[in-house]
Amino acid sequence: MEAGSLLVTKALDGNRYALARLISLVEDNGTDARSALATLYPHTGQAHIVGVTGAPGTGKSTLVNEIAKALRAQDTRVGIVAVDPSSPFTGGAMLGDRVRMRDLASDPDVFIRSMATRGSLGGLARATSDVVKVLDAVGFAFILVETVGAGQSEVSIARTAHTTVVVEAPGMGDEVQALKAGLMEIADILVVNKADRPGAARTAQALELVINQNAARQQAGENGWQPPILQTIALNGTGVPEVLAATAAHREHLYASGLWASRERTRVEMELFNVLQEELLDRVLTQIGEEQTQAWVARIAAREVDVYTAVRAIIGE
Amino acid sequence: MEAGSLLVTKALDGNRYALARLISLVEDNGTDARSALATLYPHTGQAHIVGVTGAPGTGKSTLVNEIAKALRAQDTRVGIVAVDPSSPFTGGAMLGDRVRMRDLASDPDVFIRSMATRGSLGGLARATSDVVKVLDAVGFAFILVETVGAGQSEVSIARTAHTTVVVEAPGMGDEVQALKAGLMEIADILVVNKADRPGAARTAQALELVINQNAARQQAGENGWQPPILQTIALNGTGVPEVLAATAAHREHLYASGLWASRERTRVEMELFNVLQEELLDRVLTQIGEEQTQAWVARIAAREVDVYTAVRAIIGE
Repeated sequence: MEAGSLLVTKALDGNRYALARLISLVEDNGTDARSALATLYPHTGQAHIVGVTGAPGTGKSTLVNEIAKALRAQDTRVGIVAVDPSSPFTGGAMLGDRVRMRDLASDPDVFIRSMATRGSLGGLARATSDVVKVLDAVGFAFILVETVGAGQSEVSIARTAHTTVVVEAPGMGDEVQALKAGLMEIADILVVNKADRPGAARTAQALELVINQNAARQQAGENGWQPPILQTIALNGTGVPEVLAATAAHREHLYASGLWASRERTRVEMELFNVLQEELLDRVLTQIGEEQTQAWVARIAAREVDVYTAVRAIIGE
Repeated sequence: MEAGSLLVTKALDGNRYALARLISLVEDNGTDARSALATLYPHTGQAHIVGVTGAPGTGKSTLVNEIAKALRAQDTRVGIVAVDPSSPFTGGAMLGDRVRMRDLASDPDVFIRSMATRGSLGGLARATSDVVKVLDAVGFAFILVETVGAGQSEVSIARTAHTTVVVEAPGMGDEVQALKAGLMEIADILVVNKADRPGAARTAQALELVINQNAARQQAGENGWQPPILQTIALNGTGVPEVLAATAAHREHLYASGLWASRERTRVEMELFNVLQEELLDRVLTQIGEEQTQAWVARIAAREVDVYTAVRAIIGE
């Protein structure tokens, strides 16, 4: 308890080492972590949380890197949370990517954290959300959350951002990956990266067609935001200022329309349900114990009882 | 209750219409569904469940289609469960794909079901698992589960299969997608599809390198299975018999090594935890009611209380 609250005080005070330790504490999710988060929580709610998602190979890590550099040029403090196993921030990429991000990593006003994959479905979402809270509380004004854009849990993580940037690249197989992966519905901003490659204009047109169809379907729209389609060459920074401007415009739109508050509520509800589930399961498993748990698993595997009947027997009623 | 058990009787008897209705019932997951699943469950455990996963654009749906055709030629009854939003089986693909699968869809010994995306993280995994159980119980001997191969929940779904086929294609951006998406560790069989494209041999070599590194790391290996790397051109069926032979060999290996039973236990444990979580959350939310739930959401969103403190207040201790 003591250790956690000391870390919180130091981290809020700008101590980088304390921040790193605090984030590790929070990732581990013990009792100390929870009391630390309780202390930090009133300090949150200031940061603009921007999700960046897309298929592997679209260059989204490079784009995140360049957005972060552009923000630093404006003196904005930047947090980067990489949930993408293929990101250079998580160590999963080529050497060249890692060299490119090296200048950022040494900047004291940039904090980069890569998230390890968790055992449980909800675990990664919880840990990511808690790390974002810590960065928000200690004053990182812009937090980039990079996820690989396919998969329901990753889409859920992206959905918890205020602004979601979906990254596409031309020439990856026959079709537009974002369409195939069902990412269009969560996109606030669309980026066709690697725009110097053949097919970029065609990819942008395909995205525009879908956006216009969606807009027509929604009529005037409760939402009122038309996702812009931007072209970038992240490798040399081309188009990155426009992406940054679009995130700022989206933030203004969220404030002006009241959507900021409703997105917060959606995010909080998902998180509440997620933490409730994990906590309830923990308690039941602790209560019945490992031996009993494995006995149920064996009975279900032997087809003596089905899982729903077992669950009713375990928790009653 | 009555309706459900009548459907079960008819479906076990081979009535296709009853099967379709039963699967819809199971997807909706009400009381009727649970009693139906309890009745069906002792009939399960016969099918070989094969997960097919890979990035969008690798052609895995076409491969699934061709594997199903090859199985039909051996008179095996085939179930196909598509969890991939980009699959032609879910309606998310090009017209040509759908034309290709039309001959399968009219075969009474093939059953195709596409899974809609669920709201909750665990919901899709639960629904998929239950649909597979129904197909298993009514005698589909080979069940193909197609998932888009990125994302933690999809990987979890793939992991519940007896055999996991990871599909790769050459020429999709700079790197091997399966490596980037962290799929290698779950692969029992690797397929380089679109093998007539440039770069297929290079892709296969890259996969082989990783497989050999993994094998070296595991030494003699508790597992004892070296994932084969096969090349296919699913569009014209080239290499598909070899994929089918590899799944049969893997099944034999699972039986001979005792891994079949241990995979079953892992699958059952995941499912037990998942169902426990959903059921426990349902009960708590019903108990506190919608108004109270939203009041907690509002307090957390207003930073009056953090989510962990709220959860302790809701469930006590």
